[in-house]
Amino acid sequence: MKKRIAVLPGDGIGKEVTRGAVEILRAVGERFGHQFSYSYGQIGGGSVDELGTPLPDETIELCKGSDAVLLGAVGGPKWDRLPVHLRPEKGLLKIRKELGLYANLRPTLYYSSLADSSPLKREVIEEVDLLMVRELTGGLYFGKPSERMKQDGRDVVVDTLFYQKSEMTRVIKLAFELAKNRKSRVTSVDKANVLESSRLWREVAEEVAKDYPEVIVEHMLVDNAAMQMVRNPKQFDVVVTENMFGDILSDEASVLTGSLGMLPSASISESGPYLYEPIHGSAPDIEGQNIANPLATILSVAMMLRLSFGLEEEAKAVEAAVNEVLKSGFRTKDIASVGTKLVTTTKMVEEVKAT
Amino acid sequence: MKKRIAVLPGDGIGKEVTRGAVEILRAVGERFGHQFSYSYGQIGGGSVDELGTPLPDETIELCKGSDAVLLGAVGGPKWDRLPVHLRPEKGLLKIRKELGLYANLRPTLYYSSLADSSPLKREVIEEVDLLMVRELTGGLYFGKPSERMKQDGRDVVVDTLFYQKSEMTRVIKLAFELAKNRKSRVTSVDKANVLESSRLWREVAEEVAKDYPEVIVEHMLVDNAAMQMVRNPKQFDVVVTENMFGDILSDEASVLTGSLGMLPSASISESGPYLYEPIHGSAPDIEGQNIANPLATILSVAMMLRLSFGLEEEAKAVEAAVNEVLKSGFRTKDIASVGTKLVTTTKMVEEVKAT
Ligand SMILES: CC(C)[C@H](C(=O)O)[C@@H](O)C(=O)O
Ligand SMILES: CC(C)[C@H](C(=O)O)[C@@H](O)C(=O)O
Repeated sequence: MKKRIAVLPGDGIGKEVTRGAVEILRAVGERFGHQFSYSYGQIGGGSVDELGTPLPDETIELCKGSDAVLLGAVGGPKWDRLPVHLRPEKGLLKIRKELGLYANLRPTLYYSSLADSSPLKREVIEEVDLLMVRELTGGLYFGKPSERMKQDGRDVVVDTLFYQKSEMTRVIKLAFELAKNRKSRVTSVDKANVLESSRLWREVAEEVAKDYPEVIVEHMLVDNAAMQMVRNPKQFDVVVTENMFGDILSDEASVLTGSLGMLPSASISESGPYLYEPIHGSAPDIEGQNIANPLATILSVAMMLRLSFGLEEEAKAVEAAVNEVLKSGFRTKDIASVGTKLVTTTKMVEEVKAT
Repeated sequence: MKKRIAVLPGDGIGKEVTRGAVEILRAVGERFGHQFSYSYGQIGGGSVDELGTPLPDETIELCKGSDAVLLGAVGGPKWDRLPVHLRPEKGLLKIRKELGLYANLRPTLYYSSLADSSPLKREVIEEVDLLMVRELTGGLYFGKPSERMKQDGRDVVVDTLFYQKSEMTRVIKLAFELAKNRKSRVTSVDKANVLESSRLWREVAEEVAKDYPEVIVEHMLVDNAAMQMVRNPKQFDVVVTENMFGDILSDEASVLTGSLGMLPSASISESGPYLYEPIHGSAPDIEGQNIANPLATILSVAMMLRLSFGLEEEAKAVEAAVNEVLKSGFRTKDIASVGTKLVTTTKMVEEVKAT
């Protein structure tokens, strides 16, 4: 199989972790006889510094001409005071829009070997296997107006939560499709007791559910979901929600199992390419020290193999290798605990490759 | 001291818990020589059934003519399918608006004796003492338009996040004032990397902070806050945020210490009366069984004594009594664990009264 992969390392530890993940992709290519080619593009703060924009057109073109996109991370305090349109995050928001990445998928998985680094009790998180499906190109993130104004001489400000019904249908359908290959449960999260958009969301979820009689659907208010996620995360299988709620809940979900440095994500479009990135940020404080955890990016690559290339066996091989390495006790600093073997980023990549 | 208290029991266990809390108020009145009078009003689902509205004008008048309002809880599955304007929650939203209750205060406190019922590890929650200050009458909750429309023949929906700058200033100031009597830390939560309203919020927080040089202020993105709340809740003292973020984060905060049935709240206006209510809902499934936990409502009454009547000694006496009763091992079902003494709602109230 021949595939073109766009690699956007971005800022901070983004470079180190994508380098590691590309090594794993190369190894997979060799072992299974695939031809993966890699082209590199700029995004984020480094791009602002060099090119005056967080997302140059060349990067967009590069991505559109590729079969999949691997992203490291963007941002850092260095660029926090820039005007909004020059912030690294703008690059991220723009690439989502440009590639039509309407759904962000984030699995949160329990790793028995990492339970010690979770803030939650082991019995609460044991066997957690949750998939957050977040709508990614609508809602408060892109609605207009989003501006300050004067009203009767007073300073006021407005943001707009806007959705097309079809945008809701599309992402909710995806959640049901994904649930079919899992535990066949969908929790649809909204704030239907307050927001009109949430009432429509709930109706759409009920409509879509009719086409999936084998999937159990449940509606949950977002405040309750934020509670239940901590109280009893095991109750969830697939959770689907709109953009802003998803931003909050997926970050909350990511700390439950103590494996933040381990969590991959995929962003899906209607006609590809999809984009893969670790959940963690650019962590500028540990940049260049060779201590960042490359596993989230490596597991993102496993998602790429599965979702973009249909290479299930290869994806499983990568995931199995990660599990083996953890079982053997290898840990980067963020997940290290007493009795484990502390290793560098590069050593961790080598261990996964060798397995 | 003479004070008129409006009591709105509402639905479900609201009746039982307010009955208990009023008994405690009576006992305080007798012991400390105050004259508290009580008038009862309707709100919520029961009010819809009897009067066709979740908040009759008489209740509004009653509240406006009182020195403080005690609310039980509203809602239940029975009224979930009613049109929006007849839902019990509408009564709650309306009373907030009518009384100008612009800030909701929710303390989350660690009770060593209840740590077992928390999903989090003891070392993570030990000494947690967090005060959420949530803006309560602005943002997505009340912004217009909030409606469905057709756009180029497509179904679309819009909600509006609207704030006056002065609404932000008012609640952020309150947070700083409250922090002065606590650990002098304010965490202001926003989504300034995406929302214009959040960028204004952050500016206002920075402006207000200048008047409080003794208070340390920190800005945190809402997704990160949702994470940090679980990861390390001890880092927080006062957390202030807008209405929707506050709805989500304060519910998340309320499960951290395992004492949901224990948590009080106060809603503050510019010129009074303030409204006090337990955080928990109406729990229709256990209504009338005399097993509901009355302590959250009793602790809400302690907040009333302190914040509305300036009766610090009386407030402390109630809080101390609750602590004593817990230490003696008395527990309602929601917080019971092996080795404790399971008691009914009425028995719990008696114990607090006797202490
Ligand atoms: C950086 C920011 C704009 C982004 C978001 O809010 O979507 C991030 O938090 C995420 O979740 O990918
Ligand atoms: C019932 C609902 C409208 C309300 C809210 O969202 O404000 C509740 O969740 C709360 O937090 O008091």
